[in-house]
Amino acid sequence: MSDSIKYLLSEDRMPKAWYNLVADLPVPPPAVLHPGTGQPVGPDDLAPLFPMALIAQEVTAEREVEIPEPVRDVYRQWRPSPLFRARKLEKALDTPAKIYYKYEGVSPTGSHKPNTAVPQAFYNKQEGTKRLTTETGAGQWGSSIAYAGQYFGLEVDVYMVKVSFQQKPYRRALMQTFGARCVASPSVETNSGRAVLAEYPDSTGSLGIAISEAVEMAAQRDDTKYALGSVLNHVLLHQSIIGLEAMEQMDMAGDDPDIVIGCAGGGSNLAGLAFPYIGRNLREGKKTRIIAAEPASCPTLTRGKFAYDFGDTASLTPLVKMYTLGSNFIPSPIHAGGLRYHGMAPLLSHAYSLGLMEARAYAQTECFIAGVTFAKAEGIVPAPESTHAVKAAIDEALKCKESGESKTILFNLSGHGYFDMQAYTDFFDGKLTDEPYDEAMLAKSLGGLPDIAAE
Amino acid sequence: MSDSIKYLLSEDRMPKAWYNLVADLPVPPPAVLHPGTGQPVGPDDLAPLFPMALIAQEVTAEREVEIPEPVRDVYRQWRPSPLFRARKLEKALDTPAKIYYKYEGVSPTGSHKPNTAVPQAFYNKQEGTKRLTTETGAGQWGSSIAYAGQYFGLEVDVYMVKVSFQQKPYRRALMQTFGARCVASPSVETNSGRAVLAEYPDSTGSLGIAISEAVEMAAQRDDTKYALGSVLNHVLLHQSIIGLEAMEQMDMAGDDPDIVIGCAGGGSNLAGLAFPYIGRNLREGKKTRIIAAEPASCPTLTRGKFAYDFGDTASLTPLVKMYTLGSNFIPSPIHAGGLRYHGMAPLLSHAYSLGLMEARAYAQTECFIAGVTFAKAEGIVPAPESTHAVKAAIDEALKCKESGESKTILFNLSGHGYFDMQAYTDFFDGKLTDEPYDEAMLAKSLGGLPDIAAE
Repeated sequence: MSDSIKYLLSEDRMPKAWYNLVADLPVPPPAVLHPGTGQPVGPDDLAPLFPMALIAQEVTAEREVEIPEPVRDVYRQWRPSPLFRARKLEKALDTPAKIYYKYEGVSPTGSHKPNTAVPQAFYNKQEGTKRLTTETGAGQWGSSIAYAGQYFGLEVDVYMVKVSFQQKPYRRALMQTFGARCVASPSVETNSGRAVLAEYPDSTGSLGIAISEAVEMAAQRDDTKYALGSVLNHVLLHQSIIGLEAMEQMDMAGDDPDIVIGCAGGGSNLAGLAFPYIGRNLREGKKTRIIAAEPASCPTLTRGKFAYDFGDTASLTPLVKMYTLGSNFIPSPIHAGGLRYHGMAPLLSHAYSLGLMEARAYAQTECFIAGVTFAKAEGIVPAPESTHAVKAAIDEALKCKESGESKTILFNLSGHGYFDMQAYTDFFDGKLTDEPYDEAMLAKSLGGLPDIAAE
Repeated sequence: MSDSIKYLLSEDRMPKAWYNLVADLPVPPPAVLHPGTGQPVGPDDLAPLFPMALIAQEVTAEREVEIPEPVRDVYRQWRPSPLFRARKLEKALDTPAKIYYKYEGVSPTGSHKPNTAVPQAFYNKQEGTKRLTTETGAGQWGSSIAYAGQYFGLEVDVYMVKVSFQQKPYRRALMQTFGARCVASPSVETNSGRAVLAEYPDSTGSLGIAISEAVEMAAQRDDTKYALGSVLNHVLLHQSIIGLEAMEQMDMAGDDPDIVIGCAGGGSNLAGLAFPYIGRNLREGKKTRIIAAEPASCPTLTRGKFAYDFGDTASLTPLVKMYTLGSNFIPSPIHAGGLRYHGMAPLLSHAYSLGLMEARAYAQTECFIAGVTFAKAEGIVPAPESTHAVKAAIDEALKCKESGESKTILFNLSGHGYFDMQAYTDFFDGKLTDEPYDEAMLAKSLGGLPDIAAE
C-alpha cells in the first residue's frame, strides 16, 4: 500500500452515522438567544423555518446521529470521496513531510456542500415541506440545495446576491439545470427586497439582504422552509462524514495525521474534517493539531471577538455566541466568496475558545500561488476557498523541510475551482490584490456588537 | 450488489495493457498515403512530428500494448474511472431498460483526453523531446496536453483558435495553471500564421490554421514534436482503457451491455469504450450493438463519404481513408466544439464501413434537453459533446419502454460540462439553434475530395 496515491473506501464502509462533537466537549456550548427576549430559544421559535428533525439535530448531545438510508443512497453517487497522498506535491516541495488531502470536489456541484444539502432536503420532504428558500453568494450553496431539492421533489427558490447573479451566470445556469428558480436579490418579491429597492434602486445586493428575503418567504408560508449551508450545528454534524471517512482512509494508508487543516469561512468544511479528530483528542488524549486557514481580509478567528452577535446584517436571526467581526463588517471582494462571512460557526468558535484548535490568516495572492503550485503537482485546480487550506499545508510541509521532521499533514480540499477560473485568470493577469480590511471599520463593527453578557 | 449505483475498480485491477482492434479485424485497415507521392507513408515520414514509440503504436497489429508503469502511475490519479448504474434516470424515464454510464469527467481536465495526453507526453519525454506543440479549439485537448506535459517536464505550446482564445478565457486559464503557453491562432510566430494575417488581418482563426501552426513549429525544431488529441490509431489505442475497465465493471454489476453508445467527433471516446466490445464481438461471435451519436450539423458517418482525404484544411497532413464531409466543410457553430470535425478516425471509419457499428445524428437542442434530463436525475452536468451519447441512450431506453424489453445500455459520459455552462445558459435563454448544414456546401466539399482511388 505504501506507494499508493489514492485511498478509496468501498460503499459498504461509508459511515452509517454522523459524529456530533458536542458529546465529547468538556464544556457545553453556549445557548442560542432569542433576538427579542434575550432568552434561550426553544424548538417552537425555530419551527417556522426548519423541520423538527433538523431542530432536534441542532440541539442534540448524542455522539452519533444515524444517517437515513435515503440520504446514504444519494451520498453513494459520489461518496465515499477519495483521499489522496500528494506525492507529487511533496516532491515539488522537496519536503520530508507526508501530505494527504481529502477531496470533496467529486460531488455533483464540486464542493462539500451537498453533504448537508441532501439531508436537509430529505428531512424537509419527510415533514411535508413543498418548497425551500435559501440565499447564495457565489453560488456553491445555491447549486447544492438546487441539486438536493430537485432530487427529493422540492421546489427551490434561491435568492442570489444581484452582483453575483450578474457576474456568475454559470453558477446560475447550474442551478437552473437542477431545476431551481434563481432570483436576483434584492427582488420585488419580498417586503425586505422592495424596501431596499425603494431606497437604493441600483442596489447590487448583499448576503444579508438575500438572507432576509429567503427567511421572509419561508416564514410567510406553511409549506415553505428555509435552508442554510453553513454555521448551524446540524450543518456541521452532516459534514462530519468527511472526517469519519478520512480516518478510515488514513488507516488504509497505515498513517495518522499530526496536523489537520481546513479553510474556514462559516466553518462547515473545516469542522467536517476536524471534529472527529478533535473528539478523538478529547476521548483518547491524542495531540493531533487542528489548523483553521482563514482569509486575512476576513480574519474572524484571528482578529474577531468571541461574543453574541446576529448571523445576518439585518439583525433578524437569533443571537449566537461566536467569533465575529461584527455583522456590519464588510470584507474586501476577494475571490474566495465562500470565506467572506463576518462570523464563525458557534460550535467551531466554542472549540477554538477552549483551545482545541489553532488559526492562521493568509492573504489572497499567497493562496493563489499555493493553489497553482498544487494544481501543477496534483492536477486538480482548487477552489479559491480551498487554496487557503493548501497554503497552510504547504507552509507546514516547508517547516518540516527546515526542521527535517517527517510530519503527516492532512487537509481538506473542499472543492474544485472549475467554476472559478475567472479568479485564476485575474491571478495570471496580475489583477489580484491583497487589500487589507479597514481597521477603523473593524473597530466600529466590533464596537457595535449587541450588548449581551459574554456568558 | 444489485442495488449499487457505482462500480469502482481497485487500482490493482486497472488494465496493464491497451487493446488494439486491428488485431481482431477481418480486413486490415487501408494504408495512409503521402500527400506528395500518393504512396504509403513509412515511419521516417512521420519521425519529424512524432516519437518512434508512438509511430510504432500507430502501425502495430499486436492485440495488446503494454501501458508503461510511469503512465499507469499518472492514470492512478483518477483511474479506474467509475461506472454508474443510472437508476434515477431509469426511474425518470419509467423504462424497463438498464442504463449504465462510464464517467470520464473525473480526470484532471474533466474529459477522456488525458488518457492519451499522458502517454503521448511520456513517450516524447523518453525520446528526448523538450517541447510539444498542439492545436486546440474549445480547449479540452489543449488543457489535457498542458497537464500531461508539465507532469513530465515538457514545455507545451498550444495554438488556440483565436475566437475560442477570446471567448473561452477559462479554458485558457486552465492551460496556464498547468504551465502551458497558449497562443491565439493565427499568430505572428509562424509562416502560416503570418500568411493568414497578411491576407486577413481580422481572421478569428480555424482549427485548420492552428494545426498548420503547430505542425510548422514542430517540424522546424529537432527538440519539438507535435501532439494530436484524436483521430490517430495510437490515440484510439490509449483510449481503449475506458472499454477495458468498463468490461470489468459490468462484470462486477453482473450484467453485460446489449448496446454500447458514444458520441463521435474525431472518434476517440467512442472507440475507447466500443473497440474492446467490437473485438469481443469478432472473437466470440457476440452481438453487442455499437452506436455512434454524432451532431446533425456535422454528420460525418451518416452523410459523409468513405474516401481518402486530408486531416486538415490546409492539405498538409498525410492522406487517410475515412468517413469525411470534405476538408472544406464548415459545420455550424454548435456548442459541442469537440464534435465539429470534418472527418472520423480512420480505424473507426474502417470498422463502420465493415458494418461493425451503427450511427445516428442528433440536432443540438434535443441533445441539450437530454443533457438536462440526465443532470436532473443523476446530478452530473454532461459536456455538450457527451449530451449526444445521453440522447442516444435515452432514445434506446424509451424504445424499450414501448416494446417492454429490458435491454442493458452502456454509454460513455466522456466529460462534464462545468467549463461549458455558457452553452447551458444559452439553452435556458432559448438562444440555441438547430441550424442544419448547407447542402450545397456539403456537395461542393465532397466534390472537392482528392482524386484517389478508394482502395
